[in-house]
Amino acid sequence: MLNVHFSARPDAWAAYEAPLNAAFSEAGLVINLSRDHDPADVDYIIFAPTGPTRDFTPFTRTKAVLSLWAGVETVVDNPTLTQPLCRLVDDSLERGMVEWVVGHTLRHHLGMDSHITGQDGVWRERFPPLAADRLVTVLGIGALGAACAQTLHQLGFPVTGWSRSQKDIPNIRCLAGNAGLKAALTDAEIAILLLPQTPATENILNRETLSLMATGSFIINPGRGPLIDDDALLAALDTGHIAHATLDVFRTEPLPANHPFWAHPQVTVTPHIASTTRPDSASRIIADNIRRGEAGQPFLHLVDRSVGY
Amino acid sequence: MLNVHFSARPDAWAAYEAPLNAAFSEAGLVINLSRDHDPADVDYIIFAPTGPTRDFTPFTRTKAVLSLWAGVETVVDNPTLTQPLCRLVDDSLERGMVEWVVGHTLRHHLGMDSHITGQDGVWRERFPPLAADRLVTVLGIGALGAACAQTLHQLGFPVTGWSRSQKDIPNIRCLAGNAGLKAALTDAEIAILLLPQTPATENILNRETLSLMATGSFIINPGRGPLIDDDALLAALDTGHIAHATLDVFRTEPLPANHPFWAHPQVTVTPHIASTTRPDSASRIIADNIRRGEAGQPFLHLVDRSVGY
Repeated sequence: MLNVHFSARPDAWAAYEAPLNAAFSEAGLVINLSRDHDPADVDYIIFAPTGPTRDFTPFTRTKAVLSLWAGVETVVDNPTLTQPLCRLVDDSLERGMVEWVVGHTLRHHLGMDSHITGQDGVWRERFPPLAADRLVTVLGIGALGAACAQTLHQLGFPVTGWSRSQKDIPNIRCLAGNAGLKAALTDAEIAILLLPQTPATENILNRETLSLMATGSFIINPGRGPLIDDDALLAALDTGHIAHATLDVFRTEPLPANHPFWAHPQVTVTPHIASTTRPDSASRIIADNIRRGEAGQPFLHLVDRSVGY
Repeated sequence: MLNVHFSARPDAWAAYEAPLNAAFSEAGLVINLSRDHDPADVDYIIFAPTGPTRDFTPFTRTKAVLSLWAGVETVVDNPTLTQPLCRLVDDSLERGMVEWVVGHTLRHHLGMDSHITGQDGVWRERFPPLAADRLVTVLGIGALGAACAQTLHQLGFPVTGWSRSQKDIPNIRCLAGNAGLKAALTDAEIAILLLPQTPATENILNRETLSLMATGSFIINPGRGPLIDDDALLAALDTGHIAHATLDVFRTEPLPANHPFWAHPQVTVTPHIASTTRPDSASRIIADNIRRGEAGQPFLHLVDRSVGY
């Protein structure tokens, strides 16, 4: 009998209790899943940063902290966390992200908003360019970014991908480093942000980098809020240099009702829905990682503390 | 020297004169392209239904009528047209159609409109289902419909395709005939209309067939206006059985300013922009068909008068 401690919000408990127990039993694990274990008795922690756990010190025999989220930047630097930390890498997360990113890319590419909001009875026969004539840049070409880049390429967009270290992805122009960033953003018409949040990526979209993009271009951010210097973005939207920003993530979430993004006509706020953990598939992935740990196999998706993800 | 007669609207002449002459010369053809030839001297007609030609009788030596449009339903039954008639089949037409169809499918799938039009400062964390859980049906799986169906399949949607005669397309559930139509629409959540306009397809979406679809489903029509019984659609929108219709084509175009589609909050009108002929690529295709005719080769994309397309 293993003790697994669930540390997330009450609504997550409601969503996960049954799927986790089903996945444990499917994996042949005998587990006591609870939110009220004595920390000294806990074998594994299932963890979300919005849950109650801040101090991992009392979890003296815990073998791993299994994140319910793909992003771990809010916990990776917690000095009390000495146990192995695993990110959640879930295919349904990737599928949702691809759908949201491709959908909003096509929305801006096709100029849909003018039709959705401008039904004034006037027939304006303006044709959008083809995807082949629309330059798209994806900042961050890890698992999620590469999946989005590939799908956009299949739709006909010429796609440039940028990452800190050089990658090689078929059909994608892959750039890296500081000089590569400048080249990746120069003349880009749609920029999609899927970088991890690290000290090196904070404010990567700022006054200078925004100015490199094509006039009338679009920003799509399903990555992390701090990747963008909000004031620089608002200024570029006000001059029209950036035509529109569709933002799913923010420095503070929920985005406060009085934040200028809500009221700006050239900003679309979506409430961190681009990609979400689906309880059924996430539960199976977590159960499999516990099974691996108990069988002496290495954990999957172990976080490398030196790079932060 | 061949005489090629251009019969389309003045704005088409402005767009096509230079690309056509460039394509003729690239194909090694010596051609006098004009809008003012004596009909008795014309070797080929480049034709759009919005142009001046109604009576093909005086074009006594014309070897073929080369349509600038993919759809030929407004001319195919013209009794004076005895010359071979060729449709325009252009890859850029297909690319544009796929982009528009996939974009609006993802828009409705993701529920984008509530974010685009409802920026009220309230953070509503509602997640859309994954594409894998959204049933899409494409009515009409010719070249354009099959291309859309394949791309939607690649994005994860389960796709059913329906056509008059049975087709076989990898990864698409292909149905045919009247019983197949009922099965294709039953429980469909997004229906995409890409059928040709024929007597057999007029009003194919009517009160009865609309009622088969899932409650809260979506209609996307980039095909032909008369495929839909407008009054039946408006009634289904008013009850909420159909959540939204995005329509690019209409019985009368431009759609009159007083048509109820413009004012209906659950209808998005787009001005016949889903797919368009691009002058450069279309000119090369037309030049190639003239070259084939002069070389004694069969014309490409010859219309079969017995089926109407």
